Amino acid sequence: MSVYTTVSDAELTVWLNDYSLGELQELQGIASGIENTNYFVTTSNGRFVLTLFEKLRADELPFYLNLMAHLARHGIPCPAPMANRHNQFLGVLKDKPACIVSRLSGKSTTAPTLAHCAAMGAMLGQMHIAGQSFSQIMPNPRGGAWRMATAPQVRPFINTGQAALLDSEIALHAQRNYSLLPQGLIHADLFRDNVLLEGERVGGLIDFYFACTDALLYDVAITVNDWCMRPDGILDTTQAQTFLRAYHTVRPLQDSEHQAWPLMLRQAALRFWLSRLFDKYLPRDGELIHAHDPAHFERILKNHIDTSQAVWI
Amino acid sequence: MSVYTTVSDAELTVWLNDYSLGELQELQGIASGIENTNYFVTTSNGRFVLTLFEKLRADELPFYLNLMAHLARHGIPCPAPMANRHNQFLGVLKDKPACIVSRLSGKSTTAPTLAHCAAMGAMLGQMHIAGQSFSQIMPNPRGGAWRMATAPQVRPFINTGQAALLDSEIALHAQRNYSLLPQGLIHADLFRDNVLLEGERVGGLIDFYFACTDALLYDVAITVNDWCMRPDGILDTTQAQTFLRAYHTVRPLQDSEHQAWPLMLRQAALRFWLSRLFDKYLPRDGELIHAHDPAHFERILKNHIDTSQAVWI
Repeated sequence: MSVYTTVSDAELTVWLNDYSLGELQELQGIASGIENTNYFVTTSNGRFVLTLFEKLRADELPFYLNLMAHLARHGIPCPAPMANRHNQFLGVLKDKPACIVSRLSGKSTTAPTLAHCAAMGAMLGQMHIAGQSFSQIMPNPRGGAWRMATAPQVRPFINTGQAALLDSEIALHAQRNYSLLPQGLIHADLFRDNVLLEGERVGGLIDFYFACTDALLYDVAITVNDWCMRPDGILDTTQAQTFLRAYHTVRPLQDSEHQAWPLMLRQAALRFWLSRLFDKYLPRDGELIHAHDPAHFERILKNHIDTSQAVWI
Repeated sequence: MSVYTTVSDAELTVWLNDYSLGELQELQGIASGIENTNYFVTTSNGRFVLTLFEKLRADELPFYLNLMAHLARHGIPCPAPMANRHNQFLGVLKDKPACIVSRLSGKSTTAPTLAHCAAMGAMLGQMHIAGQSFSQIMPNPRGGAWRMATAPQVRPFINTGQAALLDSEIALHAQRNYSLLPQGLIHADLFRDNVLLEGERVGGLIDFYFACTDALLYDVAITVNDWCMRPDGILDTTQAQTFLRAYHTVRPLQDSEHQAWPLMLRQAALRFWLSRLFDKYLPRDGELIHAHDPAHFERILKNHIDTSQAVWI
């Protein structure tokens, strides 16, 4: 569960005195998420989510909060941070950095339809375009340097074939220069569980704490690798093409992105294979139960390598 | 009706290309409001309201749009302006200044309950507090100077008794210095039809185009004069006290405000009596059908004068 820090009604009521959100009506812990403490908060003004940051530091948070505020004011359905009476998004609660954001409606799905893939493709394109007018920069904390630093730590735990695959893929991407592809704000973790759906509509994008500045196509690859993936780790061609075409309608993909696409799918798979290996073999306290199976992304990566021609628009 | 300027689906689709709001799904004119052209707009991202400003100039609008954005980011349920790809709230559509804002849920009521009065009092207090961190200033365009300029224009149309009442009230307020009362951002037109209710909850405050900087108590008086008023123009004591107590819980009222309260109720009644006289006798083109009866506020004003002691917390 994800309530690492307990907040009482009385404590929250005092904290809310610094906001204009009205009277506290309900406070309920949220049993998901692995990095932060989250509560649903209902006040007389509406429905919100309270987050206490357990690992991110206060100086790291303005980027994420300003980004969400920016996207929300552009009409992207994402949590909008609420400012306190001092006009600040970030507060302190129980000695932790904390914020309260608008709560979105909808539910995530594990079995997206073609319509969902189209809606997600279009929404990702809208988010990338809205991000173009966001001025803050955040280098990808899970980029090349992170791969280089993380691989040696997991190598003792994996077999020779896995180590060879890991090394050759890391070397492959290290030789490439993806900075010539269109860059911008990316979510970088837009898996199905970070998207709230209302029927066939995307009602909300959540959990922006991996967002950063990188190749937009990398975000497309991360998202397609989850939304358009068959259980056996092979891309669903129809879903992937539907996703890409919907995205392309909003933000036209370029030739350079077409050429980079097969490698980008592999880079996206590599990132999650590696982080899952790390989380499995080098878990931080209390995180073991949340560890996802690395084998899923190992399969996806191998399938991407075996597929000579990745699906395109 | 309030669609002075017609916008087609095709025109709006082109305009929306400059936003990140997704695909246009529905466009529907709104048959209320007297100053602007309004449409309900549904896109794949959500529900919005499009406004084309028929009278306000582009240079007057940033105050109102920035104010709504400020209040929304503080959790006040008000329309949040959507920024375009150039990060601007204000655009141009059909050669008119135009904006698109989030659409709020709820319905207005003509018969508020005690619970509604309490919810409104608290919400007005929250709005006033959230407004304290808004830095832009807008002098009240319906203040003392406006009264002085407008009274002579309506005097030819009213009888001697009315003219005497008008003159004496204007003179009374001209002698007073209300600037020592707590000042801030006020809505200045928070009548029942500018508030959307969801059950007993205030779901939305709308129509901020009279908002300005003035005595906060003046906003309380304007709102109480509508929400807590019996049809005969006499304040409903229970409703008014309920409203004031709920407001006071959020923003404690001061002794100076207690003393000014009876006069503030009269000033608020005078403002709407005078503007309704003007709209009735000097209507602008096409506005006659919207003219409210001035007699309602003439009665309220007289009743306030007759009541030696106005209800207080």
